[in-house]
Amino acid sequence: MLFVERLQAHRHAVEERLTSLLAETRSGPPAAARLAEAMRYAALGAGKRFRPFLVIEAAALFGVPQTQALDTAAAVECVHCYSLVHDDLPGMDNDDLRRGRPTVHKAFDEATAILAGDALLTFAFEILGRPTTHADPAVRAELVLGLARASGWQGMAGGQMLDLEAEGEPQDEDGVINIQALKTGTLIEFSVDAGALLGRASIAERQSLRAYAQAVGLAFQVADDLLDAEGTSAEVGKATGKDAGAGKATLVSLLGISRAREKLRSLGADAINALKPFGDRAAALEQAVDFVSNRRS
Amino acid sequence: MLFVERLQAHRHAVEERLTSLLAETRSGPPAAARLAEAMRYAALGAGKRFRPFLVIEAAALFGVPQTQALDTAAAVECVHCYSLVHDDLPGMDNDDLRRGRPTVHKAFDEATAILAGDALLTFAFEILGRPTTHADPAVRAELVLGLARASGWQGMAGGQMLDLEAEGEPQDEDGVINIQALKTGTLIEFSVDAGALLGRASIAERQSLRAYAQAVGLAFQVADDLLDAEGTSAEVGKATGKDAGAGKATLVSLLGISRAREKLRSLGADAINALKPFGDRAAALEQAVDFVSNRRS
Repeated sequence: MLFVERLQAHRHAVEERLTSLLAETRSGPPAAARLAEAMRYAALGAGKRFRPFLVIEAAALFGVPQTQALDTAAAVECVHCYSLVHDDLPGMDNDDLRRGRPTVHKAFDEATAILAGDALLTFAFEILGRPTTHADPAVRAELVLGLARASGWQGMAGGQMLDLEAEGEPQDEDGVINIQALKTGTLIEFSVDAGALLGRASIAERQSLRAYAQAVGLAFQVADDLLDAEGTSAEVGKATGKDAGAGKATLVSLLGISRAREKLRSLGADAINALKPFGDRAAALEQAVDFVSNRRS
Repeated sequence: MLFVERLQAHRHAVEERLTSLLAETRSGPPAAARLAEAMRYAALGAGKRFRPFLVIEAAALFGVPQTQALDTAAAVECVHCYSLVHDDLPGMDNDDLRRGRPTVHKAFDEATAILAGDALLTFAFEILGRPTTHADPAVRAELVLGLARASGWQGMAGGQMLDLEAEGEPQDEDGVINIQALKTGTLIEFSVDAGALLGRASIAERQSLRAYAQAVGLAFQVADDLLDAEGTSAEVGKATGKDAGAGKATLVSLLGISRAREKLRSLGADAINALKPFGDRAAALEQAVDFVSNRRS
């Protein structure tokens, strides 16, 4: 199967699973239909589903079939989507456009967007707590702990805070890498580690995969910054040229486009190198490196 | 020990635990100091810590010492505090005052308040995922699932959405009770159930405690509505008269003050009745009913 077909197959499977998860209602008092609609709008729009792809492919390294990784993949995607909804809010980045569609607070309203983000974040942990996600509660508890650490104050949310504080402030390369490691890197690392946890990988295997994920995570962000600097809004599906407009330092603004491309290549080499212990089994994760480095949106 | 002394002892213990939990930093890239400061501001201000009290006392029914219930109690309080931070946002209730102090977005800024709420919610699940919270991962996974359900789209967040939608809309008693069961009731019910889970209570014991918690949760909200209708801002520590101002139906506006007080008494009787199977062991939970019914802030 070609890489793009594989990516698309996982994307469809995850979206189908998310659709079914977000359609569930429990017994008890009737819940808010509008909130559920906003959550579905946020979670089921266009999206590469790159993090779910990483969960599924990392799990596959250890023989876990796609179907048994789907709930964990869906949970990670819920966290990613919640972060986009809150990032776009007027009190944060104030974006009107996301993935080529109105952002949640534009399509609904601000209060609904705040609550839809909150509820998607919460739902991710609901999914991970369920016996259907993994039969062993010790694995479920580890997934919960890992996802919370990756997305909380010492992870993604902390990175977002640092990113906001950095606007208009002078930054060096280490500072920018630290922000991006937290803001984007931690959730990408968790995605890969979640697959490893599902597959009961050894400590050594998890370390190799962590090195892979760290390189891929940073490459993902450098590629994003290159798109922001070079792409057009129509291609990228959201506003571009924002970083320069906000006076925000990126690796591209610090290194220039040519050295940023060089950095991207070297991160790609690091990522592929970290996959060595897995041999041919890691072909899809290896191809993901090219996908990340050369993405156009 | 008098009830108020007991409440205060648990409050101190929970605040001490929260202080220590929110001071922890992990190895890895440096996290955002401002975010941690806003989280501490939100979680460590004045507060009755009623939900932690319920966790601790329900656990105590089954012989679980306070120290072993503290982490779970702290996790529930993180969720309660996050919900207050987000409820107060300009895009939601737009409140400047909470527990007698400026709200988080007033003391910091809106972006920091959004992120601090997100991070407190996430931190609650981090705490519950840790082996220190309970030695058995099956109990941890159940706590995660329960907290997520209680606070998510079919729980607290859903109730908040319905509450916003209900402003200016005609409501009957069942409609108001449904909103309040979701908005306030589900987290109070989970607090009691969390104690039962920590203590490995039987299904029958959990059902008795659920009946208690449902009555207490609704009583808590009726008392809150009475305070809003009758109290002064200085006494209550936040703006009062808001429900009437927002055209928001409450049990007090639907039933009138006198019948609302009657309802409060009958809920209290239900709650105490549900504790019968536990005999004298449930004295503190019984006294909590009076505390809820007669609170002045």
